[in-house]
Amino acid sequence: MTDHPRVLEAEHRPNPEHISPEQQAVEEQLISNVLRSFDNCTDPRLKQLMHSLVRHLHAFIRDVRLTEAEWNKAIEFLTAVGHITDERRQEFILLSDVLGASMQTINVNNEAYEDATEATVFGPFFVENSPRIDNGDDISGGAAGQPCWVEGSVTDTDGNPIPNARIEVWEADEDGFYDVQYTDDRVSARAHLFSDDDGNYRFWGLTPTPYPIPHDGPVGKMLEATGRSPMRASHLHFMVTAPGKRTLVTHIFVRGDELLKYDTVFGVKQSLVKDFDEQPAGTATPDGRDLGDRSWSQVRFDIVLAPSTS
Amino acid sequence: MTDHPRVLEAEHRPNPEHISPEQQAVEEQLISNVLRSFDNCTDPRLKQLMHSLVRHLHAFIRDVRLTEAEWNKAIEFLTAVGHITDERRQEFILLSDVLGASMQTINVNNEAYEDATEATVFGPFFVENSPRIDNGDDISGGAAGQPCWVEGSVTDTDGNPIPNARIEVWEADEDGFYDVQYTDDRVSARAHLFSDDDGNYRFWGLTPTPYPIPHDGPVGKMLEATGRSPMRASHLHFMVTAPGKRTLVTHIFVRGDELLKYDTVFGVKQSLVKDFDEQPAGTATPDGRDLGDRSWSQVRFDIVLAPSTS
Repeated sequence: MTDHPRVLEAEHRPNPEHISPEQQAVEEQLISNVLRSFDNCTDPRLKQLMHSLVRHLHAFIRDVRLTEAEWNKAIEFLTAVGHITDERRQEFILLSDVLGASMQTINVNNEAYEDATEATVFGPFFVENSPRIDNGDDISGGAAGQPCWVEGSVTDTDGNPIPNARIEVWEADEDGFYDVQYTDDRVSARAHLFSDDDGNYRFWGLTPTPYPIPHDGPVGKMLEATGRSPMRASHLHFMVTAPGKRTLVTHIFVRGDELLKYDTVFGVKQSLVKDFDEQPAGTATPDGRDLGDRSWSQVRFDIVLAPSTS
Repeated sequence: MTDHPRVLEAEHRPNPEHISPEQQAVEEQLISNVLRSFDNCTDPRLKQLMHSLVRHLHAFIRDVRLTEAEWNKAIEFLTAVGHITDERRQEFILLSDVLGASMQTINVNNEAYEDATEATVFGPFFVENSPRIDNGDDISGGAAGQPCWVEGSVTDTDGNPIPNARIEVWEADEDGFYDVQYTDDRVSARAHLFSDDDGNYRFWGLTPTPYPIPHDGPVGKMLEATGRSPMRASHLHFMVTAPGKRTLVTHIFVRGDELLKYDTVFGVKQSLVKDFDEQPAGTATPDGRDLGDRSWSQVRFDIVLAPSTS
């Protein structure tokens, strides 16, 4: 139906010998009827989306010759996904993530533009109205973890600095949980800041650690049933916005993390893997902060924003 | 990807001129990664289902170049479908129905077998443990509607009568509601009976009337946004089981119903459209029942069951 690599598709081509021409006609007539039901849709884009959805949904059912028991299981699964979803937990996003659908949507909408920083998945843990911090401040808000000095520049694709870019950062604590996963309304390990007059930024965060996606629900059961790990590679989230620039939603990953080769939401891109330099306790910090007997790390992440019209 | 009619697919082939080879490679690499994540799945059928699902889901995203705003809308829509679903309302089945996915699953699993009666959608309103009635009894249980005498035979595809086949019947009342859609725990317009020693059956039901599927939820909003009617053609549900026979889930429809040409769940098959003969008040009934000043109707539905191994 598209120009996908043939190698991906060969194994699931249905064997027409097993399906009579009369049966194929019945199945195809139904697809025509469903497509025609959208004839009065006045929104051309919505009509296109529904048509394509119907084609692919029916192609799936026909390709696998879905059984009625499997259809029932699918209904039960989606019902369970719906019922565990609430204001704090978004199991549909998790489902989209582990099927690579979120990442593919990111890919489709963030085509590579010159040397602009690559995008990756948004994830379900971003929260509006994060605390504002100044450059050099600490985002941790009491969250447990090894301190990590993060700094870099924000530029356009011609190398011009972008002052006053809004930089949202958020991450899990060393136990693998975001603040919103706790029930005590804490706000920690998230903040926003702005690049300075020279387009540079710096803050104290936490060295990212690997963690499982929430896997006590239906998506976790699906991962288990299919032999998949729920683990995400260690990462730190960024969302960077500036006037006239394409909004960048991305992470940075930790070079050397064993999970880089299998991230359960498929978010890893090589250009986003960074060196987090481990510093023993007592090493002087970039801003003179006294960390006592704690070790720390530091990383540089230079951000390049594409124009918004790209 | 399959042998679907090319005419259905031509209009949505993505224009490769708009997508660079590098970008295509990024998108295809992601699909490979997602497929590979199921390498350790030990259930071959589950693996096949997940692979096909991933391929079609990603093909959809790529074909329409799904925007991030549209992805968000899809997540919101599925969340709303999940939240309105409870023990009495199954919005996911409704969604599957209006996309023709339920009917296609029925098609795939109930390939035509000689002159066996055709199957159609199950719908969300079947309930276990319906009242048992004897042949000739009334299923209405107080539900409002015109009385309808329903009779027929149950045979195999060689014409041999099948005694003692279990026949479940259920339908909406004249206001368009099934019993389970009321909040008073009534049980009405549903029952089960068994074919007699000669393989025949007969009962009093209600003349079917058209009704909308529940359309006050997200699926109804979708139908409205896409210019579609929520109406179903008038019908009476049957589920027929007998040892050694393929379970038949079907409806009969009313010849002359204007909605036969557009049934919102695509359940109509010409072989299931029957003559419901209207009888004026005072006409003698088949079993001598006195209906007073009420008109009534009658229909014949001969049921042919395929062998269960077909």
